Amino acid sequence: VDMSLTGAVQAHLDDLTKPQGSLGRLEEIAMKYCIATGTTRPSLCKKKVFCFAGDHGVAAEGVSAYPAEVTPQMVYNMLGGGAAIDVLSRHAGADLEVVDMGVNHDFAEHPMLRRCKVKHGSANMAHGPAMSLDETLQAIMAGAELAIEAREQGYDLLATGEMGIANTTPATALYSVLLDLPVEAITGRGTGIDDERLRHKIAVIEKSIEVNRASLATPLEVLAALGGFEIAGICGLILGAASVGMPVVVDGFISSSAAVCAIKLSCKVSDYLFFSHLSNEQGHRAVMQKLGARPILDLDLRLGEGTGAAMAMQVIEASVKICNEMATFSSAGVSGKND
Amino acid sequence: VDMSLTGAVQAHLDDLTKPQGSLGRLEEIAMKYCIATGTTRPSLCKKKVFCFAGDHGVAAEGVSAYPAEVTPQMVYNMLGGGAAIDVLSRHAGADLEVVDMGVNHDFAEHPMLRRCKVKHGSANMAHGPAMSLDETLQAIMAGAELAIEAREQGYDLLATGEMGIANTTPATALYSVLLDLPVEAITGRGTGIDDERLRHKIAVIEKSIEVNRASLATPLEVLAALGGFEIAGICGLILGAASVGMPVVVDGFISSSAAVCAIKLSCKVSDYLFFSHLSNEQGHRAVMQKLGARPILDLDLRLGEGTGAAMAMQVIEASVKICNEMATFSSAGVSGKND
Repeated sequence: VDMSLTGAVQAHLDDLTKPQGSLGRLEEIAMKYCIATGTTRPSLCKKKVFCFAGDHGVAAEGVSAYPAEVTPQMVYNMLGGGAAIDVLSRHAGADLEVVDMGVNHDFAEHPMLRRCKVKHGSANMAHGPAMSLDETLQAIMAGAELAIEAREQGYDLLATGEMGIANTTPATALYSVLLDLPVEAITGRGTGIDDERLRHKIAVIEKSIEVNRASLATPLEVLAALGGFEIAGICGLILGAASVGMPVVVDGFISSSAAVCAIKLSCKVSDYLFFSHLSNEQGHRAVMQKLGARPILDLDLRLGEGTGAAMAMQVIEASVKICNEMATFSSAGVSGKND
Repeated sequence: VDMSLTGAVQAHLDDLTKPQGSLGRLEEIAMKYCIATGTTRPSLCKKKVFCFAGDHGVAAEGVSAYPAEVTPQMVYNMLGGGAAIDVLSRHAGADLEVVDMGVNHDFAEHPMLRRCKVKHGSANMAHGPAMSLDETLQAIMAGAELAIEAREQGYDLLATGEMGIANTTPATALYSVLLDLPVEAITGRGTGIDDERLRHKIAVIEKSIEVNRASLATPLEVLAALGGFEIAGICGLILGAASVGMPVVVDGFISSSAAVCAIKLSCKVSDYLFFSHLSNEQGHRAVMQKLGARPILDLDLRLGEGTGAAMAMQVIEASVKICNEMATFSSAGVSGKND
């Protein structure tokens, strides 16, 4: 990004008819969006939420409150328009596409479904790598291509989301290794497990890290060993979006783990990322602190799918409109400060 | 309100295709909106922001960074569509009406302006009551009538906003007296005053409270002595909305002081109030804590006009849509929890 724009953007924001800085984070977001898109009058019209779906071999360890068949069931629910992310994408005026990156089910064609399946679910990471390096790269490339295609279709802003029963387990493992955070401190209840299953989940994550210890030398290896197909797809979407100068709104606990992978693979992607909300999932706060990120919203969401990202898209759009549509002191004939 | 609806609303929210409670505050907001409107499938289509404007005699004490002529200038800016609240009302899909409750300027007719002027600004509260009781009641009644008329016009949700140079000063005085908070702890920099002027502002507020000590026996007297016309108008809007069962989104520091007046006048209005955001104005956090309120957004806004309320309207609308548009587990054929 071209940081030399900062002065011009700040001068414009300060000339708008409001006390300087009085729109707080809306101004910060506008600044970041301007820098990311390389202009003082950015466009934000077409928006799209990509909801990546994948199954996880580690679900067999009993780490989730829901059975694995819920992954394809929820994909169908999304295609039918009845999931939370359908409602919130519509509300945000964003298109929604569900990406089958690795669901253990064969879907027929559907206008809202992108079929990028690498495999029918990842392997059980408690026994070895969740994905091979080739599979991981295939998922990353598929995600990146979606971003590049979206740019060609005129989209201005993308958001990430996911569906995959058991996926807080790989996400937590990724955080622990990539951000050097203790598993116990950042493992949460996902869709709602009890104390006993939480202790079991922590043990499974610790075991998975141990089992894969020999193949965690690079961020790509870590993602392959402890990730999942939807996480790799989101990582690819972020890398692809950054490569074409397109901002991405990152959803909560799972999507942020994909963002961490993307940052570790290419630190410059941070300039394009908006962390949408502080998840209610235990551990997300520690992750955001480690990244030095202050999420836009704090609504106690812990659903995933892209729900927090869709909500934050509206705040980002408001910020961009402030930048583009407000009058200036001189144009509106408003007096400045006394001093 | 009819709290017996709680069970039916909760059962419906729990039947939607998501882990129970996983939409966090969106579910809480949906619950409150359902209870306030007395239905499990509430309507939220027509929205309106009322921006009340008034001038303040206490501005003569030099408590603001901006000259008083900015109040009418900003009203013209709003009527021209270039103020922040214009941009954010449009973004929220809400109509906007500016209400001249007591600006020291005579406005011509304008389709976006409601002329309810009680007087050309309040008196200087550092020397005596800002308004007489009659004037205060007149402003309250005008605000209440706007709410009742809006209900007749089919509006579902109202938001408050204000414009009035120096109005953090009366708002702070109101908080100090009505919520028993020390002036020094809750006095902030408003549109941006320096340390010296901040000390002066604190002294002016303390003096105003002292000067009016004999006429602070009832909430109405406090509002008259230490308030302002736009604050009384907002107070009336809230009372009127509650009287016809209509929820109101309260903006930041100034609007919340009007809400406190309304609550002190009639405690049942709390059931209809959504506190939109935590203002960056010093003191708002203490006020929200005292009220036991957790604002929806925390975006470091300190502009007023209704900007935070307009932003929060979108979150409330999302909550209502979740309630109305999501599929249920049985209708979508999604499996429930394992246990």
